[in-house]
Amino acid sequence: MSKLTIIADIKANPDKVDLVKAALLKLIEPTRAEEGCINYDLHQDNDDPAHFFFYENWETRDLWLSHMNSDHLKAHQVATEGCIEAIVVSEMTVIG
Amino acid sequence: MSKLTIIADIKANPDKVDLVKAALLKLIEPTRAEEGCINYDLHQDNDDPAHFFFYENWETRDLWLSHMNSDHLKAHQVATEGCIEAIVVSEMTVIG
Repeated sequence: MSKLTIIADIKANPDKVDLVKAALLKLIEPTRAEEGCINYDLHQDNDDPAHFFFYENWETRDLWLSHMNSDHLKAHQVATEGCIEAIVVSEMTVIG
Repeated sequence: MSKLTIIADIKANPDKVDLVKAALLKLIEPTRAEEGCINYDLHQDNDDPAHFFFYENWETRDLWLSHMNSDHLKAHQVATEGCIEAIVVSEMTVIG
């Protein structure tokens, strides 16, 4: 099974930017410790502080799915409930 | 001036996917040769072949702006005119 790139585009509610940012930062350490996590990098938009973006690479899709079922991700979803305006996750492949 | 991350989300017109893909691939070599280009990686969505994505890092914003004014990017824009449904470029900073 080939490497999987995940892009996760996250828009926080305007009044919850700090809360969402702290919650996203909290995901990094436990996620990078997970099996199959190649990189997991968080970004913030220079022109829109409410806009966050994860660029991730995983050894396999199965290992990414395990991440999606992890305790720390579930805790994150609970902690940010009602604080996120939109989130778009795309599964991609590097082609060049 | 700090490192700049660029994410470029590109949606090709459904009937122009191959043309746009070839044109995007053509950008890679000359762009990676440009001063300040740290990485310039092209992706295609596993669930939507018309959806492409560049993940880029540049040493400075100025060097990225030079790229945006380069001959090969201008030639790309001419070659793909009328073939791209949407393109969203965001300037970001790694925060974790």
